[in-house]
Amino acid sequence: MPETELATSLVVLDLVGIFVFAVTGALVAVRKNLDLFAAIVLAGVTGLGGGFLRDVLLGATPPAALADWRYLLVPLAAGALTFAFHPAIGRLERGITLLDAFGLALFCVTGALKAVELGVGPVPAALLGMVTAIGGGIMRDVLAGRVPVIFEGALYATPALAGAAVAVLLDRTDLPTVVVAAAGFATCLGWRLLALVRGWQAPMPRGPANV
Amino acid sequence: MPETELATSLVVLDLVGIFVFAVTGALVAVRKNLDLFAAIVLAGVTGLGGGFLRDVLLGATPPAALADWRYLLVPLAAGALTFAFHPAIGRLERGITLLDAFGLALFCVTGALKAVELGVGPVPAALLGMVTAIGGGIMRDVLAGRVPVIFEGALYATPALAGAAVAVLLDRTDLPTVVVAAAGFATCLGWRLLALVRGWQAPMPRGPANV
Amino acid sequence: MPETELATSLVVLDLVGIFVFAVTGALVAVRKNLDLFAAIVLAGVTGLGGGFLRDVLLGATPPAALADWRYLLVPLAAGALTFAFHPAIGRLERGITLLDAFGLALFCVTGALKAVELGVGPVPAALLGMVTAIGGGIMRDVLAGRVPVIFEGALYATPALAGAAVAVLLDRTDLPTVVVAAAGFATCLGWRLLALVRGWQAPMPRGPANV
Repeated sequence: MPETELATSLVVLDLVGIFVFAVTGALVAVRKNLDLFAAIVLAGVTGLGGGFLRDVLLGATPPAALADWRYLLVPLAAGALTFAFHPAIGRLERGITLLDAFGLALFCVTGALKAVELGVGPVPAALLGMVTAIGGGIMRDVLAGRVPVIFEGALYATPALAGAAVAVLLDRTDLPTVVVAAAGFATCLGWRLLALVRGWQAPMPRGPANV
Repeated sequence: MPETELATSLVVLDLVGIFVFAVTGALVAVRKNLDLFAAIVLAGVTGLGGGFLRDVLLGATPPAALADWRYLLVPLAAGALTFAFHPAIGRLERGITLLDAFGLALFCVTGALKAVELGVGPVPAALLGMVTAIGGGIMRDVLAGRVPVIFEGALYATPALAGAAVAVLLDRTDLPTVVVAAAGFATCLGWRLLALVRGWQAPMPRGPANV
Repeated sequence: MPETELATSLVVLDLVGIFVFAVTGALVAVRKNLDLFAAIVLAGVTGLGGGFLRDVLLGATPPAALADWRYLLVPLAAGALTFAFHPAIGRLERGITLLDAFGLALFCVTGALKAVELGVGPVPAALLGMVTAIGGGIMRDVLAGRVPVIFEGALYATPALAGAAVAVLLDRTDLPTVVVAAAGFATCLGWRLLALVRGWQAPMPRGPANV
């Protein structure tokens, strides 16, 4: 695949991932009975927040997405469409969860590779890949006044960390970037889908907590 | 008006806006029965948080306000005074809401023009103007453990975005900065006051949410 | 003490402080019945969040701790150990509170001195010292869905601000850094321990709040 086609494909994939994340943000707003503006803000925060957090921590400011109207238009559209058609979209829950897994797998890889590119070592790069993938969802939940859902047993962050780590490690080999990214993507997506299908949960605390 | 007088007026206006925002932050703390320190922190976060968020996203760190004792003293005073005299200040609710609209209109314009000055394009500049105006209030509500009030129907962020957009657009003409700023300010303030007087609300979701 | 031994001691102290803060984060996760991943994230946020916030506000990004595996391993270990042994660790509450006071005293001083080193004036440096010491705990509470405990009467932030201010002021004299740091540390620790022993509380609002 020529370089420019690859870049275009990446932007398209990125925008699709942002769209899906943004839909989950707007759905949370609607379910909390918040207004149209909240739906759009939560869409934007969920879709772009993880990448913004990565860029702020790396000092790569202003974040690239802030200066690209496509990256601002997509969450706006996702928020407004979800607000308008939420009963129909809400019924697609299962499909959204699958697409959300796709976004997770995408962002953990692109986030980690961007961190590598900006010069940090492999351990922080893998961590920042995970932060890119899960940061927006955490901000969405905090802004909507609920404990982040990924803290309550959903196996969500571990696949993102694994996918990011695979991408970071393979990036140190001679493999072409497409292969590196695909391997990280498949690791995260496979693990996340297995967890969904089999109902795997993260370990919960045992025994009574001495409150 | 000579240049220095204009600059002085801007600082005074800025400090007045921060004071009013800070009072709303301290009132939330008092109403949640939080302590004096919380009143001062919420005052500071509400008054300065939006500008800090803008500066961090733009990489314009450390934020100018952090290095200017006047910008630190004003929220401190607002927090302590509100804590001490909250029954009296709380009774001025209507006046505070009006002054808060003034702060909103001021910060969306100064925030947007600062973003332009720091080199970002018109769309992110307008967005960052809105973020400057509403970011502090959102942080205040999150820290106080409540869903941001501007997510629940108050017509608050849209006027800020409109005022910021007007300022950014006119700034690309030959108009003097005073006129540019005044037009953005009037757009936001007029819209916000109309919404308050007429009881306009942001659209709320229709129909049951498939929780 | 030779320069390198001092540096090593500082890193060890720093890691001990991060460990204790991280334990408090993981305990909050367990008590909210959150999963293992949440325990590790809250451990990391509590242990490192204040320093990250300081570095982001100062533009000193990426934060040094992000690039040092020891600073990432310690909260990971603290989170996992606390998750596994929480009934035993929870019973050590009193000891943890004491060690937490030690971490507070340490971080307000190191945070303030790092801010001075990065070139900000004495007032923002003292503020950022306090932010370093209390920021992680505030993030922990917001992420766990509760109002920050330091807003509800605990005398916690004032000692941190005092310790940071003492360190910043003495740093402008000719005293050796060890003495400067020790004086700030002792100010914060002494005040905090006195508050714990005597049951001192921050002032609470008087009279009914006009909600």
